[in-house]
Amino acid sequence: MLAEKLFEQLNNDNIINAGGTIKFELLGIKTTIKTKSVVGDVIQDWLTEYMKKNAIEFKFSEHSQKFPDFFLGNELLEVKCFDVKKSPNFDIANFESYCGSLLKSPERLDSYYLIFSYEMNDVDHTVYIRNIWLKKVWEISGPSDGWPIKFQVKKGMIYNIRPNTWYSERTKYKKFTSRKEFVYALAECIKRYPATNHLHKANWLKEVELGYQRLTGNDL
Amino acid sequence: MLAEKLFEQLNNDNIINAGGTIKFELLGIKTTIKTKSVVGDVIQDWLTEYMKKNAIEFKFSEHSQKFPDFFLGNELLEVKCFDVKKSPNFDIANFESYCGSLLKSPERLDSYYLIFSYEMNDVDHTVYIRNIWLKKVWEISGPSDGWPIKFQVKKGMIYNIRPNTWYSERTKYKKFTSRKEFVYALAECIKRYPATNHLHKANWLKEVELGYQRLTGNDL
Repeated sequence: MLAEKLFEQLNNDNIINAGGTIKFELLGIKTTIKTKSVVGDVIQDWLTEYMKKNAIEFKFSEHSQKFPDFFLGNELLEVKCFDVKKSPNFDIANFESYCGSLLKSPERLDSYYLIFSYEMNDVDHTVYIRNIWLKKVWEISGPSDGWPIKFQVKKGMIYNIRPNTWYSERTKYKKFTSRKEFVYALAECIKRYPATNHLHKANWLKEVELGYQRLTGNDL
Repeated sequence: MLAEKLFEQLNNDNIINAGGTIKFELLGIKTTIKTKSVVGDVIQDWLTEYMKKNAIEFKFSEHSQKFPDFFLGNELLEVKCFDVKKSPNFDIANFESYCGSLLKSPERLDSYYLIFSYEMNDVDHTVYIRNIWLKKVWEISGPSDGWPIKFQVKKGMIYNIRPNTWYSERTKYKKFTSRKEFVYALAECIKRYPATNHLHKANWLKEVELGYQRLTGNDL
């Protein structure tokens, strides 16, 4: 409810198509930042301030590098950004860590992803928010070439879970329609990938199903 | 000469201990950025503006992800930043790409590294420049545990060449004293590391020595 309230508030404030510039001054020389790789961190810092101003209570994760970015009450919230001119290429999570963590923290399956797409003006470098979404993990991931889930793969090794183009009608692959489909696809990857096969042998899928049931009282 | 001139100018302008904040405003909410991972990109964007204001002519690399960050005349300039409270952990270059590129571009051995250390104030998030250095690659790299050059190693695989603590008197390992020592240490790594052994077999060291001589008229 809290994440949804935040999302609604951002929409009510007309964040879509709102814009601002990132500025830095040193030795009396003012500059507008034009490097897009900073935009994600900048928007996340801005969102912190936005929540304070709107009396939306939040806590940070104890470890800054850890999941999630924010707790809103007992809801988990991750913030992601991508350049509207490209496909979303943010990391949803490291594959192996994520699978391991679901055994201890099945609540991660219900984490919210607050996603901003932005466009940076080529001339004055204003950052415009072009869209926002509030999603669950199975709504932004999906099958891909070679694997039941889209991954960042380098030299045959799986690194991160990457998003699909969830907002597009034209996708090559069927989208997941439930949390359960996502978890079953993860289980299939765990089985096939040598570095995670030990999880498969240790009954990972059964454990996650039971863990989620114990936590929520519901089936996956 | 141009990189040295830039370095001298920054010192003359008393950049050491100068400070500034990174700001962003959206929907009327002003925020000061406190995420340190953006500082390197912000300082590099600022430096661009600084060079323009000081009539120091520069060009960018044609590809933004490519080496070097800037050309000053025919001098190559890379800009690096690190948090003064930590050891420098920036990437000097990807190991395999760097070794390959020296065959075609031995001038990279004479690239300048303009390095800023910064401190971010915990309360108001002002970024203070604490020191600057202008260095060649062999002056900021050195031997480490396990390899003749300090690398970023993950699961036994070498990714990037990483700096040593060049400014410290107390270092466990001897520093390189010349370009030649650095190249010979690279050659030793190339020989020992399976993924680059083909370069060793193709006479990498000899080729780089000849290439550098052809380009500059000098031995390594």
